[in-house]
Amino acid sequence: MKPLRSLATASLVVLLAGASFAQSPMEAAIGARQDLMKLQAYTMGQLFMMAQGKVPYDAKAAKTAADNLAAITAYDVTPLFPKGSDNASGAKTYALPAIWENEPDFLAKYADMHKAALAAAEVAGNGQDALKGAMGALGGSCGACHKAYRAPLQ
Amino acid sequence: MKPLRSLATASLVVLLAGASFAQSPMEAAIGARQDLMKLQAYTMGQLFMMAQGKVPYDAKAAKTAADNLAAITAYDVTPLFPKGSDNASGAKTYALPAIWENEPDFLAKYADMHKAALAAAEVAGNGQDALKGAMGALGGSCGACHKAYRAPLQ
Repeated sequence: MKPLRSLATASLVVLLAGASFAQSPMEAAIGARQDLMKLQAYTMGQLFMMAQGKVPYDAKAAKTAADNLAAITAYDVTPLFPKGSDNASGAKTYALPAIWENEPDFLAKYADMHKAALAAAEVAGNGQDALKGAMGALGGSCGACHKAYRAPLQ
Repeated sequence: MKPLRSLATASLVVLLAGASFAQSPMEAAIGARQDLMKLQAYTMGQLFMMAQGKVPYDAKAAKTAADNLAAITAYDVTPLFPKGSDNASGAKTYALPAIWENEPDFLAKYADMHKAALAAAEVAGNGQDALKGAMGALGGSCGACHKAYRAPLQ
């Protein structure tokens, strides 16, 4: 086990280099949730662009993107939203204090995105129309949560 | 369906605002894979810190972090590594051309991380020692892939 343990330690140093060392735990959590949102936006963007014909529909690519979205939206975001990490705290975030005043609703809205992603993954490979049919619920889940819990982007 | 579709379009605009519009598809893919790596590093960092006693071990938090890591390491990264997105292309990336010369090995090494995360999720809630026992394989999977396929960080 010694070599593995040393490797694990070495990897940890590399892993955290340039990321967490200079940050407070709260800044790191905010950064991590923003990374997750960006990755979700990117992955969802692939689906929207195919649904809207902005890039050619490709059954395999659509299925992969929807599966990927289903995978990452399963992330339990509770630890990424520690109390006090709202935009009224002075932190660099668009997260409204309303999140912590309505945490069950926030988490339910977040879970709606995962459900919509799972539904999209079921049909994304079945043609552009099938994909398009799944995008309403997906886009709606983004919008519902952002409307309630995210400050307008500046 | 009309209102839902409009909502989806509106959400897409918001989703992609400030992210993809100014980027080429290749830059966007590089950004997305870096977001994923950062999120993995953050989530893995939570586990390492608890395993090493740098933050107090908490069974629920450890299990959540390991489950989250298992979820996001299931992402099929093939679309995030389009041909030509290596560090010899002038792109802002540490990804070595060796990735595309050994794609099956790269993907196998990447899959090793998912397997290690699933194994960690099985035991992470069973005490600090159990968690510690799972970290060798996890750290090893990071190191193996980075050593072969990532340029030294600068």
